Formats: sequence, structure tokens, C-alpha cells
Amino acid sequence: MGPAPRILELFYDVLSPYSWLGFEVLCRYQHLWNIKLQLRPALIAGIMKDSGNQPPAMVPRKGQYMFKEIPLLKQFFQVPLNIPKDFFGESVKKGSVNALRFLTAVSMEQPEMLEKVSRELWMRVWSRDEDISEYQSILAAAVKAGMSTAQAHHFLEKISTQQVKNKLRENTDAACNYGAFGLPTTVAHVDGKTYMLFGSDRLELLAYLLGEKWMGPVPPTLNARL
Amino acid sequence: MGPAPRILELFYDVLSPYSWLGFEVLCRYQHLWNIKLQLRPALIAGIMKDSGNQPPAMVPRKGQYMFKEIPLLKQFFQVPLNIPKDFFGESVKKGSVNALRFLTAVSMEQPEMLEKVSRELWMRVWSRDEDISEYQSILAAAVKAGMSTAQAHHFLEKISTQQVKNKLRENTDAACNYGAFGLPTTVAHVDGKTYMLFGSDRLELLAYLLGEKWMGPVPPTLNARL
Repeated sequence: MGPAPRILELFYDVLSPYSWLGFEVLCRYQHLWNIKLQLRPALIAGIMKDSGNQPPAMVPRKGQYMFKEIPLLKQFFQVPLNIPKDFFGESVKKGSVNALRFLTAVSMEQPEMLEKVSRELWMRVWSRDEDISEYQSILAAAVKAGMSTAQAHHFLEKISTQQVKNKLRENTDAACNYGAFGLPTTVAHVDGKTYMLFGSDRLELLAYLLGEKWMGPVPPTLNARL
Repeated sequence: MGPAPRILELFYDVLSPYSWLGFEVLCRYQHLWNIKLQLRPALIAGIMKDSGNQPPAMVPRKGQYMFKEIPLLKQFFQVPLNIPKDFFGESVKKGSVNALRFLTAVSMEQPEMLEKVSRELWMRVWSRDEDISEYQSILAAAVKAGMSTAQAHHFLEKISTQQVKNKLRENTDAACNYGAFGLPTTVAHVDGKTYMLFGSDRLELLAYLLGEKWMGPVPPTLNARL
């Protein structure tokens, strides 16, 4: 029996494109590294507010940079990102509370579905420029991820329960307590130490901390499998 | 004869620790990739002001993160970073204008010395917590980099000339025109296209754009040579 896998907590919001990049890379490496990935949906709006941080696009040149960089990152990470037409207007205004509460409900009862449902929500907002705030939109993503309509309805009903609301708040608070000021935030537990890493661009550093091999955002073993 | 080397412009300020990381990685890869590295000292304070951006530490949690991350980056990048005792007080207040004007003067007359002198200035402020604003401090860095005292005095005299001031302003403006909102900013000219990349964490993406091999921040060939 080898050493126990190291726990990695990934805090993410489906409204955040960089969260998607971090998510896909860690989902790939979870099959290659000795890690146990814990997906923790958390509200980016709550983290920004709590930390006093602002979205990058509040500085116009950062926003312009982000929009130029995303098409490059799409190729490099092999994640089908497309910038929504009115992201900082419509998408941000609508927010991601319902989508994240849905994911939270899924994580509590059917955690094995969390990866796929999260991905389908990103596919909606950050690939096909579709809504993720309406119940019908979330239902469609869940069904696309392989859930039955009945199951999806069950989780939609859970959205408004105090239990689910509290759990999402708990995740968001946990990220803040680790010092998060944005998402994705990865927390690695290695040899009794805790490392918090911010962004989708610290994953090579994460590999270094874990003593695992970094093979780029699209590790070759996975490439061969595609 | 192989294809012509691609031009890489690196805008940096010796007050910026992330600039140092980007600088060392590109200085290493300039011997391994088909690139021509152009070092362009630029004033981070000017870029922040012009873009409306703020230093990371203005958000307290970002500052805390930075201070926790730097010791990890130090190991990972093999760059001897040590956080100055009162960086955001004394070091930032003193600024880097004299140091950057000195580097600019060097770049105009003795560009082959620019890499070494830049490194020695970083060694002062970001490794040994020493001043870089006084003439004596700059002189010491230059001499340590291999310059004669007479040469160093010559460049110190140039600091106050309009020609040097203009050239530094030109570099800073050039970075802003490329869309910079912080440093390091790397501008890659590849197949008639121009890519601006921000930060010391986009160098693997840079390798991808160049079609060159990324071997981490400390490429093995270099490791073997040390």
C-alpha cells in the first residue's frame, strides 16, 4: 500500500473562467497524481466582498487583457472557453447563486455527479453563452451531465432549503478563512502543512509542493486517451 | 541557417519581485530557445498610475498571500528572494527611479552589462534588504556586477540627463501602449503577431506560443551547468 493520497480542496464558481481552467486541470491530474480532489463550490461574489477585492475587469486594461488571453488559454488548456457577449453586464448581474446551490445540493447527496454537472454549467455560460440562473437552465445542464429529470428536479427543490444555503455559505467562508480573495483557490494538505494557492496559474507550483510531475495543463497520458 | 530568433521584450522594474522571477526564467531560456531577449527597464509606479491599477497589497489578503507565496516561489524558481522588512513602507516610498535610470543609461551604452547590473540591484533590495535609491547603493551594485568604479560613476552622471529620463519614460510608455497594468510584462513577436503576457506565471504559455519546450522555471540543462 502506497502513501495516503494528499487532500486537495478546490474552491470554484461556475461564473469564473479561470476556475474552469483550474478545475479541468485538477480533474485530469486526479487520475495521475496521488491526490484526493475535493470539489467545493463557493460564491465568488461573496469572496470578493469579504476580501475587499474587485473583479479584474474593474481596471479596464485588465479586462482587455483577460479578453485577449482567454482565446490563448482555451487552446493551451484545451478547455472550450468562449467569452459571453455581455459577461460583465448580464452574466455577472444574474449571478451564480442558484447554480452553486444546485451544485452544493448535488455535493451533499450525489457527490460523484458533481464534476460532470459543474462542467455542464460552465459549458452553458462560458462556452455557449447560455443562461445558468433559471431553473430550466440548471435542469438542462444536469440532464446533459447524465442526471435523470426526476433527480434534477429533486435537487432543484433542495436549492431553497436552509441546509443547502448554509452549506454553500460554509464553503465560501472556508475559502475566506484560508485567505481567499478570488477563485479558483486550491488548498493542498501536504505533510501536515496547508498551502493555499490562488489562480489557475499555480498548478505547476502545486505539483512541486506535492512532489508530483507537472506535464502541462493537458498531461500526455490524458492526451493519448482522448 | 535556422529561422530568425523571435524578439521578446521584457519590461521590468527592480522593485518588483515577480519581475525578478520572470527576468531570471527568461535569462535562462534565452540560451535554450530561439529568442532574442530585449530587456526594457520600466517604472512600475508609472504603469500602475497610467492603468489605474493598484499594487496587490492594497487588498490585505492579497498582500498576505504574496508574503506566504514568495518563500515557495523562491525555492521553486531558485531565485534568492527574501521579503524586505518594510517593503511597502520604506522600499516603495523610496522608489526605483534612480536605479531604473541607471539601468536605462547602461542599456543605451553598454547593453551587455544590463542583465548583471539588474540582477545585482534585485539582490540588494529583494534578497539582502538593502537600499537601491542612493547613488552609493547603485554604485555598489554596478561594481558587484563587474563594472569598474569609473564606469559606474560615468553612468551615475548620466542619470540626470534628459536623454536618459526620456528613454526610461519611452520604455514605460511602450509597456502602457502594449496594455500593461503591472510588471513583469512580456511582449512576444511571433509570426507577425504580437502577444502581451502579464506576470511571471505566463511563461509556460509563452513557450506554447513560441512552439518551444517548457522545462519548468529552472530548465534542466541549466541545472546541470550549475
